[in-house]
Amino acid sequence: MNASILNIGNELLNGLVVNTNASYIARQLDGIGVYVKRIDTVSDSRDDIVKSLEYHLPESDIVVITGGLGPTNDDITKLTLADKFGMKLQFHQPSYDNIKNLLKNRGIEVSETNRQQAMLPDGCVVLANTQGTAPGMWFNVNSKIVVSLPGVPFEMKYLMEAEVLPRLKKRVQSKTILRKLFLTTGIPESYLQDILRDWESALAENTQLAYLPEPGIVKLRISITGDDQKAVSEQLSLYESQLRKILPHEIFGTDNETIEIVVGKMLANRGKTISVAESCTGGYLSHLITSVPGSSNYFMEE
Amino acid sequence: MNASILNIGNELLNGLVVNTNASYIARQLDGIGVYVKRIDTVSDSRDDIVKSLEYHLPESDIVVITGGLGPTNDDITKLTLADKFGMKLQFHQPSYDNIKNLLKNRGIEVSETNRQQAMLPDGCVVLANTQGTAPGMWFNVNSKIVVSLPGVPFEMKYLMEAEVLPRLKKRVQSKTILRKLFLTTGIPESYLQDILRDWESALAENTQLAYLPEPGIVKLRISITGDDQKAVSEQLSLYESQLRKILPHEIFGTDNETIEIVVGKMLANRGKTISVAESCTGGYLSHLITSVPGSSNYFMEE
Repeated sequence: MNASILNIGNELLNGLVVNTNASYIARQLDGIGVYVKRIDTVSDSRDDIVKSLEYHLPESDIVVITGGLGPTNDDITKLTLADKFGMKLQFHQPSYDNIKNLLKNRGIEVSETNRQQAMLPDGCVVLANTQGTAPGMWFNVNSKIVVSLPGVPFEMKYLMEAEVLPRLKKRVQSKTILRKLFLTTGIPESYLQDILRDWESALAENTQLAYLPEPGIVKLRISITGDDQKAVSEQLSLYESQLRKILPHEIFGTDNETIEIVVGKMLANRGKTISVAESCTGGYLSHLITSVPGSSNYFMEE
Repeated sequence: MNASILNIGNELLNGLVVNTNASYIARQLDGIGVYVKRIDTVSDSRDDIVKSLEYHLPESDIVVITGGLGPTNDDITKLTLADKFGMKLQFHQPSYDNIKNLLKNRGIEVSETNRQQAMLPDGCVVLANTQGTAPGMWFNVNSKIVVSLPGVPFEMKYLMEAEVLPRLKKRVQSKTILRKLFLTTGIPESYLQDILRDWESALAENTQLAYLPEPGIVKLRISITGDDQKAVSEQLSLYESQLRKILPHEIFGTDNETIEIVVGKMLANRGKTISVAESCTGGYLSHLITSVPGSSNYFMEE
């Protein structure tokens, strides 16, 4: 299943806002086995939104759209999608009740502008947004799925997790995908590639290795896809033991670990504590150390 | 002048990397008066790169491409562009010398793979990359500009600043664009919009107001475009004084200022100092305070 992500918003096109919505949605889709083919950003313009859809729909089974649903920008996304799919807006009582409640809790009267947010295309599935006034919309059109979500990150994330991902999971073929990140330090990426070349070329076809370099760290990601959960899991264990044999000292952690988490674990396991004296790092070292939950057990003072 | 940004890379499509290259390039282009119409991300695939170019080129005067130039991913961007524009690869001695020098400084011999990076399309302007082994490429095709840059952020930034922006500035109509950010706190975005509605609707046509909400802060951006530098500057001063009259207490800073910078300035101006005692913030407050250059003059201890 291929997906495209379409982010609508002028603040993304002038570079004032970094598009973290796209990477969040991409990670979520990737996590359930949906391949993200393209990520596109356009302005709040009817013409640009339509052209973008025409660019994506021939090759993607699903297009996830964010943005352009706020009351201040004339709901351009909603009107454009309704027109494009030949639908009419109709009043949606549950969405109106939600808007009224949300505003009431903030001590605000419902305005005509807010009421407009409850006018929704008659052919869409409404995705109830408990976090904000703009409902999400799910369109089934010509065997494709188009989903429209608000651009506000926490509202978008709520709707992805509560409404979009559960629906999508049912449609994705139930392949097993296992992934593990191995965090290495001490070897630059190009050397690491040389060291791992033979091992990498012997990996099975259902396995992918990705190099993800960061300052001072290269993350190696192994992804294995298969029909049988147990077989995939055993394959991952095998590759892990091979990799750890090739890089006995360079792998310092896995997945979401960080240097400060790993150091914290080592301290806790050995019953040791740490103190720091900082000058030009101005508290940053102790900030890193204490950002780990439970660090008060081994962090003494500075 | 319209631009599109095309970022090539699987690490962007699976969400493991946030696309900060796009926002950097967008800010730079916006800063010289080039309007960014679209930002598109595709994989290291010939077919996807060609389709993306066909999507962008009809409406953009320039397409800035990043990624797909490293020796490990078969130079797919370079080969695709050469094919698309009917060019042949030829050996480029200055690029080869640069590659040799860079690798020599790292104590590495030039491999055949590295030598391939000096094979460049015969019709492009080579943009010398002093920061890495992949040269940038500038194509003039059918009155459009296509620029291809490495995806490594510091190499891309070097080439943008040293090679791309100076060339583009010469082609952009010499309009003046002045912008100022006003940082407000204490009023949610929707209230702020209500308060500013009358003022906003009276702004001249050459003026744009953007609301950029962040946690606890709403940034207001005024952008004014015009032919006459002095007139635009006076117009900005007028709007600033009007805005400050409407929001006498809510604007705490402008442009790149932060709360810690503003607090630091207030302390320095009054000859006051500050100490903090932190527990669960674990050094983060002092980290923020000391992240401001000169803070050792007013930050005492913790």
